[in-house]
Amino acid sequence: MNYQTQDTIVALATPNGSGAIAVIRLSGPEAITIAQSVFKGKNLIKQPSHTIHFGTIHDSDLALDEVLISLFIAPRSYTRENVVEISCHGSTYIIQSIIKLLIKQGARAAKPGEFTLRAFLNGQLDLSQAEAVADLIASDSKASQQAALQQLRGGFSTELQTLREQLVQFASLIELELDFSEEDVEFANRSQLRQLIHDITQLIGRLIQSFDLGNAIKLGISTVIAGRPNAGKSTLLNALLNEERAIVSHIAGTTRDTIEETLNINGINFRLIDTAGIREATDAIEQIGVQKTMEKISQSALLLYVYDVQTLSVKDVEHDIVSLHKPGLPVLVIANKIDLQNTTQQAPNLPEGTTYVAVSAKGKTHIEELKQLIYQHSVQGRLNGNETLITNVRHLEALQKTEQALIKALQGIDTAVSSDFLAIDIKQALHYLGEITGVVTTDDLLDNIFSKFCIGK
Amino acid sequence: MNYQTQDTIVALATPNGSGAIAVIRLSGPEAITIAQSVFKGKNLIKQPSHTIHFGTIHDSDLALDEVLISLFIAPRSYTRENVVEISCHGSTYIIQSIIKLLIKQGARAAKPGEFTLRAFLNGQLDLSQAEAVADLIASDSKASQQAALQQLRGGFSTELQTLREQLVQFASLIELELDFSEEDVEFANRSQLRQLIHDITQLIGRLIQSFDLGNAIKLGISTVIAGRPNAGKSTLLNALLNEERAIVSHIAGTTRDTIEETLNINGINFRLIDTAGIREATDAIEQIGVQKTMEKISQSALLLYVYDVQTLSVKDVEHDIVSLHKPGLPVLVIANKIDLQNTTQQAPNLPEGTTYVAVSAKGKTHIEELKQLIYQHSVQGRLNGNETLITNVRHLEALQKTEQALIKALQGIDTAVSSDFLAIDIKQALHYLGEITGVVTTDDLLDNIFSKFCIGK
Repeated sequence: MNYQTQDTIVALATPNGSGAIAVIRLSGPEAITIAQSVFKGKNLIKQPSHTIHFGTIHDSDLALDEVLISLFIAPRSYTRENVVEISCHGSTYIIQSIIKLLIKQGARAAKPGEFTLRAFLNGQLDLSQAEAVADLIASDSKASQQAALQQLRGGFSTELQTLREQLVQFASLIELELDFSEEDVEFANRSQLRQLIHDITQLIGRLIQSFDLGNAIKLGISTVIAGRPNAGKSTLLNALLNEERAIVSHIAGTTRDTIEETLNINGINFRLIDTAGIREATDAIEQIGVQKTMEKISQSALLLYVYDVQTLSVKDVEHDIVSLHKPGLPVLVIANKIDLQNTTQQAPNLPEGTTYVAVSAKGKTHIEELKQLIYQHSVQGRLNGNETLITNVRHLEALQKTEQALIKALQGIDTAVSSDFLAIDIKQALHYLGEITGVVTTDDLLDNIFSKFCIGK
Repeated sequence: MNYQTQDTIVALATPNGSGAIAVIRLSGPEAITIAQSVFKGKNLIKQPSHTIHFGTIHDSDLALDEVLISLFIAPRSYTRENVVEISCHGSTYIIQSIIKLLIKQGARAAKPGEFTLRAFLNGQLDLSQAEAVADLIASDSKASQQAALQQLRGGFSTELQTLREQLVQFASLIELELDFSEEDVEFANRSQLRQLIHDITQLIGRLIQSFDLGNAIKLGISTVIAGRPNAGKSTLLNALLNEERAIVSHIAGTTRDTIEETLNINGINFRLIDTAGIREATDAIEQIGVQKTMEKISQSALLLYVYDVQTLSVKDVEHDIVSLHKPGLPVLVIANKIDLQNTTQQAPNLPEGTTYVAVSAKGKTHIEELKQLIYQHSVQGRLNGNETLITNVRHLEALQKTEQALIKALQGIDTAVSSDFLAIDIKQALHYLGEITGVVTTDDLLDNIFSKFCIGK
């Protein structure tokens, strides 16, 4: 990627396809001049920022469309450059004609994420905020939207920035010690430094721990449904989904033999995975498809085990649970078809981390209760209002490297290593922390981040 | 449809799907108040029209997105009502959340075309201009875009308005005669009226005639490719399309056994139709698939007959042409594979309206020449810069009815019918003319027109 921002870029900012209007975005020093060169209606150059102007886009004598032009004058824009947004009629032909014309007039087609890259390079957003823009566009539930918006609004950045500033202060004191190394002085109070690094490590540890939940929230919480044939899994799935269908209701499974449905409970997306191994089984679970099921279960965050209370004995249920159980994985044991039952079956004896609930999928009884149990067993208690969640693998890795460097520094303090070794560890920690917000960056890193953006953002 | 415009409507104005930004549009008396009720950042009510404001959309305490709000204060807007456009991040979850929130605050989900309907009802556009908005959004070539934009900018309306005003003047004079019917006076000079109606009928006749071309331009000019097996039709098709692919390159045929490709020549779309009847034939054209081919040909505006100059005798070519020929249909006879030919084959003797051209589809020689011939034989001479073209079946029918009423009026003048009969015919003509621009309209007509619009326009 070439970070020269002297040129003016152009792209469609709204989705391709049929719609009433489309928005074409120009950013760069010549944005207004280029727009003016094809616009009849008003002298844009004389207009104030944040104003809208009606007129016609012309290719020489040929009128292309009647449009509205929005002006954002540097630095009062998303990219902090001059930005022009052209709102035209939503015909692909018209959109392409206008973009071609703007390129003819000196603009360049924008690369994916290039508007946001410029916003980062010009100091409008830090790197984790820029990444939050992509997350926000991809968000498909209240929880993922909230996590992204919080990150965009700088909650995470501020937290890191505070840590970093405290460390920087000590780092500079230690640097000073190096200048006076022959005199063997300590400008940086070691016990204070130790306390600070300890506090920071605690905080970073908490952030690292939040990744499991943050990532699950971003992608949806993987929830496997297992059960013997005719346990009523499909009916249960429908009963759950009927209540509130998620926006994306069908997702192709990672392999062809799994079906995924998205269920939204209290703003969190759950990816319900029905496994073919069990779906097609004609015999007991332990005989067919156990391996496949176990694979799915090992990747999941929650297991829903469903059984037919009419046909399966308590002993069989207990046997199934034992064979499906995995340490640390919450299991909901769901007794189905309770409406058909004449006598009351006793609840099975279940291992720890397992909760029992009786429902009728067909009669839709206790379904809301089941949903709240699903929520409780995966999210509740772990999601506190404004706590910062790590949702990004890049941030996780940087935090882990920071943590390692800080632990080394702590060990250094404890073993009273010389200032220059300590300085190296603290610099390392600062480096990795800085990678998250983009204080420290490389072209490769930026390429990697922004190439995943959509064009026009 | 309920034409009460006291309520405020809301819809997504940009396409569904993945994009950097989306625009949600509100229109109605409460547009600004409703937007203000969910917006934190500024007091929108105090801001001037055509200004843009940054802030956050809030659902109670929950921040939904950072947005830009564009204000258009009545009557300076598309609908002549207060209009607010919210530019948010392009996540379906966010879009739906904001729309739901605005509905909770008192807006109503807009019906298809309802913004444009309001623009019509509030006198911003006449009916033919409103229809042009939909045509403009659907336009997929320079020619269709130009026809729609000209109609949107009122070229057609102005022309009809002038005719109508002249007729109205005479109609009122004739009405006056009715008031004095006992005295047998003529306020309306019959020879002047005859001349006017004659002139108007001429003009309407020209508009009616323009429909064939106007409609072809809007939908693409139907061009059948015919030829015996191995004549090189597919190679020719590819050679034609390789030069400049249209934006929509694949259109499902009207029946499953036809393939349609769109070729753009000089801004006009040609729908190239390869017929299966001939495509799959293993024998001479006249034996297999002639009926199907003839059907396609009878619906087409141009025929491209391709033959292999190596294998087909001049006599066979002449025979094929005679069997495919249809009066009034221009035919291009294309001798293919001229690069493989050792001796020069003579051009066949061809009937009138037929043009001969020799090409090599594989070698891509004379392909540009062929394209210009395709253009010449269908469009050239019929498309003069600024001439108004009828592209809409509704307008065609209204013009035909106007013409019939005017012809009756002319006959009435010639046979000196009484003023009251003449008045009826002229009123009829005025009625049908008025239907085009919406001076005369019914709820059914408006429903029919606007229900075909997309939502958000």
